[in-house]
Amino acid sequence: MIKAGIIGATGYAGGELVRLLLGHKEVEIAWYGSRSYIDKKYSQVYQNMFQIVDAKCMDDNMQELADQVDVIFTATPQGLCASLVTEEILSKVKVIDLSADFRIKDVKTYEEWYNISHKTPQFIGEAVYGLCEINREAVKAARLIANPGCYPTCSTLSIYPLLKEGLIDPATIIIDAKSGTSGAGRGAKVDNLYCEVNENIKAYGVASHRHTPEIEEQLGYAAGEEIRINFTPHLVPMNRGILITAYASLKKDVSYEEVKAVYDKYYENECFVRVLDQDVCPQTKWVEGSNYVDVNFKIDKRTNRIIMMGAMDNLVKGAAGQAVQNMNLLFGFDETMGLQLVPMFP
Amino acid sequence: MIKAGIIGATGYAGGELVRLLLGHKEVEIAWYGSRSYIDKKYSQVYQNMFQIVDAKCMDDNMQELADQVDVIFTATPQGLCASLVTEEILSKVKVIDLSADFRIKDVKTYEEWYNISHKTPQFIGEAVYGLCEINREAVKAARLIANPGCYPTCSTLSIYPLLKEGLIDPATIIIDAKSGTSGAGRGAKVDNLYCEVNENIKAYGVASHRHTPEIEEQLGYAAGEEIRINFTPHLVPMNRGILITAYASLKKDVSYEEVKAVYDKYYENECFVRVLDQDVCPQTKWVEGSNYVDVNFKIDKRTNRIIMMGAMDNLVKGAAGQAVQNMNLLFGFDETMGLQLVPMFP
Amino acid sequence: MIKAGIIGATGYAGGELVRLLLGHKEVEIAWYGSRSYIDKKYSQVYQNMFQIVDAKCMDDNMQELADQVDVIFTATPQGLCASLVTEEILSKVKVIDLSADFRIKDVKTYEEWYNISHKTPQFIGEAVYGLCEINREAVKAARLIANPGCYPTCSTLSIYPLLKEGLIDPATIIIDAKSGTSGAGRGAKVDNLYCEVNENIKAYGVASHRHTPEIEEQLGYAAGEEIRINFTPHLVPMNRGILITAYASLKKDVSYEEVKAVYDKYYENECFVRVLDQDVCPQTKWVEGSNYVDVNFKIDKRTNRIIMMGAMDNLVKGAAGQAVQNMNLLFGFDETMGLQLVPMFP
Amino acid sequence: MIKAGIIGATGYAGGELVRLLLGHKEVEIAWYGSRSYIDKKYSQVYQNMFQIVDAKCMDDNMQELADQVDVIFTATPQGLCASLVTEEILSKVKVIDLSADFRIKDVKTYEEWYNISHKTPQFIGEAVYGLCEINREAVKAARLIANPGCYPTCSTLSIYPLLKEGLIDPATIIIDAKSGTSGAGRGAKVDNLYCEVNENIKAYGVASHRHTPEIEEQLGYAAGEEIRINFTPHLVPMNRGILITAYASLKKDVSYEEVKAVYDKYYENECFVRVLDQDVCPQTKWVEGSNYVDVNFKIDKRTNRIIMMGAMDNLVKGAAGQAVQNMNLLFGFDETMGLQLVPMFP
Repeated sequence: MIKAGIIGATGYAGGELVRLLLGHKEVEIAWYGSRSYIDKKYSQVYQNMFQIVDAKCMDDNMQELADQVDVIFTATPQGLCASLVTEEILSKVKVIDLSADFRIKDVKTYEEWYNISHKTPQFIGEAVYGLCEINREAVKAARLIANPGCYPTCSTLSIYPLLKEGLIDPATIIIDAKSGTSGAGRGAKVDNLYCEVNENIKAYGVASHRHTPEIEEQLGYAAGEEIRINFTPHLVPMNRGILITAYASLKKDVSYEEVKAVYDKYYENECFVRVLDQDVCPQTKWVEGSNYVDVNFKIDKRTNRIIMMGAMDNLVKGAAGQAVQNMNLLFGFDETMGLQLVPMFP
Repeated sequence: MIKAGIIGATGYAGGELVRLLLGHKEVEIAWYGSRSYIDKKYSQVYQNMFQIVDAKCMDDNMQELADQVDVIFTATPQGLCASLVTEEILSKVKVIDLSADFRIKDVKTYEEWYNISHKTPQFIGEAVYGLCEINREAVKAARLIANPGCYPTCSTLSIYPLLKEGLIDPATIIIDAKSGTSGAGRGAKVDNLYCEVNENIKAYGVASHRHTPEIEEQLGYAAGEEIRINFTPHLVPMNRGILITAYASLKKDVSYEEVKAVYDKYYENECFVRVLDQDVCPQTKWVEGSNYVDVNFKIDKRTNRIIMMGAMDNLVKGAAGQAVQNMNLLFGFDETMGLQLVPMFP
Repeated sequence: MIKAGIIGATGYAGGELVRLLLGHKEVEIAWYGSRSYIDKKYSQVYQNMFQIVDAKCMDDNMQELADQVDVIFTATPQGLCASLVTEEILSKVKVIDLSADFRIKDVKTYEEWYNISHKTPQFIGEAVYGLCEINREAVKAARLIANPGCYPTCSTLSIYPLLKEGLIDPATIIIDAKSGTSGAGRGAKVDNLYCEVNENIKAYGVASHRHTPEIEEQLGYAAGEEIRINFTPHLVPMNRGILITAYASLKKDVSYEEVKAVYDKYYENECFVRVLDQDVCPQTKWVEGSNYVDVNFKIDKRTNRIIMMGAMDNLVKGAAGQAVQNMNLLFGFDETMGLQLVPMFP
Repeated sequence: MIKAGIIGATGYAGGELVRLLLGHKEVEIAWYGSRSYIDKKYSQVYQNMFQIVDAKCMDDNMQELADQVDVIFTATPQGLCASLVTEEILSKVKVIDLSADFRIKDVKTYEEWYNISHKTPQFIGEAVYGLCEINREAVKAARLIANPGCYPTCSTLSIYPLLKEGLIDPATIIIDAKSGTSGAGRGAKVDNLYCEVNENIKAYGVASHRHTPEIEEQLGYAAGEEIRINFTPHLVPMNRGILITAYASLKKDVSYEEVKAVYDKYYENECFVRVLDQDVCPQTKWVEGSNYVDVNFKIDKRTNRIIMMGAMDNLVKGAAGQAVQNMNLLFGFDETMGLQLVPMFP
């Protein structure tokens, strides 16, 4: 039994982390950090936790926290984790950062896209990008995990195998992504009001979204070269779920079976990636509340392009679930512990 | 480890039963009955079950099923369970009927409101109304459980204590109920199309909804007399959730504390009924995906009425979750086994 | 052709007023008041108005405005209109106040329920409650219109005829109301975020909502006595629409035809009140975007109660549409001018 | 004043046509055709029309209809219009077909993609593709209008200018489209039930959607050559609205201003196409209920691609509104008559 502390426990990702850890038999949540709600009962912020969680919200003192717990999750705005983490802390506890602070290896790229000055670039090198399906062994040995972004998780897992196996031309990748509104966080903004989001769809961050360089870096590893992609996210009137539809030109003439075999090669032993049957398109509802990523593809002979699709729950595999998966690897638990969640439908 | 068979596994309530039983460590699902989808893989009907459930859908042969399993759930249209059940079957397996066939003790009342002729009225007497919080001991000893309706569950649990303790006038009870659309089932009807339900709210079954006599019977037991209520359900543009808002005249001058004490007397040891803090109104989102019923009340001194409120997930506590709770009691499992579900938010 | 000024043009009701007045052939909008967005183009606040409205937002200077326009609409928070209006202004222009400032004749009741001190109680007496169907002649002669609240409009029109004709017992009236989220305004609050409202329903302001005394006053005029009601509003996951479901005990044994005749007596010549056919329940979607109120009723012989139902668009008949209807009466235009809007479905 | 007949008046597009024509001062609807609801009052099928439309639904007898009206709209399934139209009919009335029957010039392409045999290929040649912004003069002189599909309208208007002016490479065009659910029609199918669509997003018809050849033909005219595109539609949980996000490689280095000038060249005199200000992304909500198409673009220097975006209401500009626009041109009315609809927000 290990103890966990959460900094940023009252955001949507933090709340989901609480939900998941409450169902994990080897973890006890010892610290519900939330600067905005200090001393308020956590269950008053999230009434779903009434009579389940009795604790109060606490400050985000990582120094103190490091003495009390085995693992710290930071589900906080960009820059906060980087400003709190120290060598001393990392020597005491594992840190799983759900923000973008340690995801991008090139600090200049991070600072440009996030318009922020990185406070602790010395830890970027050792931080492990926690996409378990790809970096499993490195994760196990890490002190500091950069938990992947929601869009990058879904995009990378959908495209990685074909890029790695040289089936698609890296210069032609276009990712059109759609996300539920929980991805925008719990901040009180007019743009995220019910009446503004409901019955509406829009693109945002066109050619400028911060997840772009993160996806490019990960796909670049698969391609074995630096790549540039187009990435366009859209806001969809639903709470949860990310769907990505990606396009690329095929480098050779391949059959359905050949491409399927490539996906299977990478994912048939993975617990959380499901390669769907032929002609079944991923739907976000089929993975809601679970840690699954559903992927599939369609070859278009007419244009010689392949359309790759991936669906997942942005708060689970795209945030809290993947963080728990990383924690499981870090502490030698079964990778699926606390994550055997059957998707909820409808 | 017991074996369970589900007749009607591809409706929304049946699907939820599958989700819950998959997380129950003492149950194995041995039969996915669905006349509409015979021989089709269950996971092709519900893609969320892809790589989780490998079985195919089977016919609804209760006779054959009774030899293979320990408990049969019927999540079927009115009349079907009553037409299938026999003394031989009941001597072999426990039957938990999610339809209304055995809920109403007076067969004439059933036949009038449901406009159907009851095929096996001889079993109505022994059937136990499976509202565990009220009939716990009887449930444990039953062969045939009439799993309560969604609206009756939420209504009864919200009103029962005050009626039983004589605080409210039974002749004044009005229940205004609101339900998500999964309560309407998975049948393909124009009225339930997305575009018809979305951005819309309406009452339906006004002064004629079939759950009326069921609620009246249960509340009648609490009142110790026959009662007549008004019950008005509404269709709300959301997938899951039932909220009931009930009104009654107070029979005496009572304080908040006195009423709270009554609710606590009935529910403080209940795992699945949460009496919320003062002035916190139940919200369906706070119980989504869980077996909780959240209840609360407000006294209106100006009109001498009390407003009672209850919220629950219609597919869980209002159907599949309550069925599992009944099964747990029937087989001597811990009542919460497989039901320790943290509500999902958002 | 008259000129209109709007104070509070960037709230949802203000925006709807702009939409409606743009389609009114006898009105020109001369002033888009919005303290929050001064000097910003109106079409940048509401992009639907791009290339339709070219004006910028202006301050809420009612004094100056009174010299430039013929009618001023105040779609502002409580207290603002009362603090701006003067005898001089009223002598120059017609004022239609969409806030509650002049709706309640008893200033003490207003101050208690709104927890605000009324700045200009001297105008309460002359203000006309702008429910055109009931106060048509008084409206025509007014200088200051108190435009009715959304819930009071729907509630009063649904109940008024039966109360006036003595069919129902005023002491037994219970109104259970359901509203779309635009009624909560455009303020940036966590409670109104998409993820908090979507897939959720809750009661709020139970036994304490500010519209209660307004409804009681209007229904009291019909009853010929002071009355006390229960009024419970609920927040529904949709943008627009109010549905009220009201309950009352019948004072005598009446048939469907008799009650229908009463409704017809009051409404058969009304352009904006539709008494639906027998057994058709009002739905908010059937009136969306229009100035209609759809009403109907159902007698429950078993309980001797009648259930009255009303549906309307809260931003049209419940706010901006009714304000335009009042304006039409004030200026001698056809009452339906600019309001012949066919409801939009789906 | 002309008379119009609608065949297929009870589908969603037909219903919208009724809504729009009721607001058109030069048209009277003389025939509400609906084979499914013959002899039923139209307002019982669409209660929003209660007390507005008194007519009953009639059979789809085009022969008879041609003698009674000046224009026939067919809002019917594929193949029906082609099976009904004759030389005699076309010599008597104008026909505006909202189905795909006459949109594609190459009958083999039509028959392949629609899997249907064309009954009257002899009229394909003379049919005019009713995208008014591009074919205005031809429309005016036509007897038979092929009203464009929803996706093709939005896609073509968003991409046409850049293709025509040679700014983008036709071989690189990818269109990722998102549609509200009314586009799926009013048929009772499980896939379109509220609970299946709500809280969900999916791609469908990947690399096989029937609108693909229609878009290719129209864009081919702009390119001056045959082209092949990728087109992927998605189903979004909302009633109305289409958003397209299109990608193409730039053929030369262009600035924002140069591209803007191209769009302005084509659209600055158009009533229904709005080129938004820099960095404002089109949103479906901003055009809801109106005949506008909002377009904009973003240049991505990093990838040398341009992202083109377009939003419109699929039932208005994507169906009924465009049909009315065509009718206006056919009969010499002002092109905007009956279509000066301010988008409704929220």
